[in-house]
Amino acid sequence: MRVLGVDPGLTRCGVGVVEGVAGRPLTMLGVGVVRTPADADTALRLVAVEAGLEAWLDEHRPEVVAVERVFSQHNVRTVMGTAQASAVAMLCAARRGIPVVLHTPSEVKAAVTGTGRADKAQVGAMVTRLLRLSAPPKPADAADALALAICHIWRAPAMNRLQQAAAQHASAAKGRTR
Amino acid sequence: MRVLGVDPGLTRCGVGVVEGVAGRPLTMLGVGVVRTPADADTALRLVAVEAGLEAWLDEHRPEVVAVERVFSQHNVRTVMGTAQASAVAMLCAARRGIPVVLHTPSEVKAAVTGTGRADKAQVGAMVTRLLRLSAPPKPADAADALALAICHIWRAPAMNRLQQAAAQHASAAKGRTR
Repeated sequence: MRVLGVDPGLTRCGVGVVEGVAGRPLTMLGVGVVRTPADADTALRLVAVEAGLEAWLDEHRPEVVAVERVFSQHNVRTVMGTAQASAVAMLCAARRGIPVVLHTPSEVKAAVTGTGRADKAQVGAMVTRLLRLSAPPKPADAADALALAICHIWRAPAMNRLQQAAAQHASAAKGRTR
Repeated sequence: MRVLGVDPGLTRCGVGVVEGVAGRPLTMLGVGVVRTPADADTALRLVAVEAGLEAWLDEHRPEVVAVERVFSQHNVRTVMGTAQASAVAMLCAARRGIPVVLHTPSEVKAAVTGTGRADKAQVGAMVTRLLRLSAPPKPADAADALALAICHIWRAPAMNRLQQAAAQHASAAKGRTR
């Protein structure tokens, strides 16, 4: 499974591509950041984010795009930019027919470090170890994007089992009411 | 000046096209709502909003797109959908090189009713009168989109004068420091 992780943001949108399956060593195929100037109009920044993400999708052709789920209880100013950038990421993927899956920051931290309250350094250290890199990816947004992709590869089997169980339950319930 | 007003939302995204200049009677060229199913994935809803807005831009070729400015102090759940839909609206316009201008809800209400605290019915009544319609546009999101377009046509001259004054001030300041 090849996953593009996106840590959405207008100033720095982290992107990371990881390939692998749960239970086997993972491979990093690419990591980077799409940046847009803070003094530009929001509309133009969104166009730049779209162009940047399209280039990543063109180059790596991921099967799934994993995006960080945005919560609005955070900082009022930054949350709007994050929500807007995440909308562009979801749009770019879904427009190509690529499934989009959202993971919360604590799900990502728990997946790669074992605790949902891990700090940036801990996440960076685990991403470095899991992908056998020589140093933690910089900036932190790039490391977070890789962590999102890893989180998705590891959670996907459980998510699929849950979906199958729900589908079976639904069809069984349908059988009973027939 | 031809303006497409967008009242952003995932469930109902209001759109309205108004043509005219400040101080002259205005003409409504179109009004409607782009709807997406509440039970669909957010990513697919954003694709549907994009397709709907693209059709409006293709048909009416506006010179400006006026979008309601989203604030995050509102309801936590709805603000995310509003922010995401507004990102798609800004993206669609800016990608075509069409200027995007944001107006706050109170600026819009003040422009068409004289008070920033007007209710939906008052906005609908004034939009009906200003555009010489036989009845208020329904739903309220459609009327709000028309109000946004009207607000922009009326505020544009003042906004242009302010921009020119700021530019002159900047070039004068530059002259002094030379």
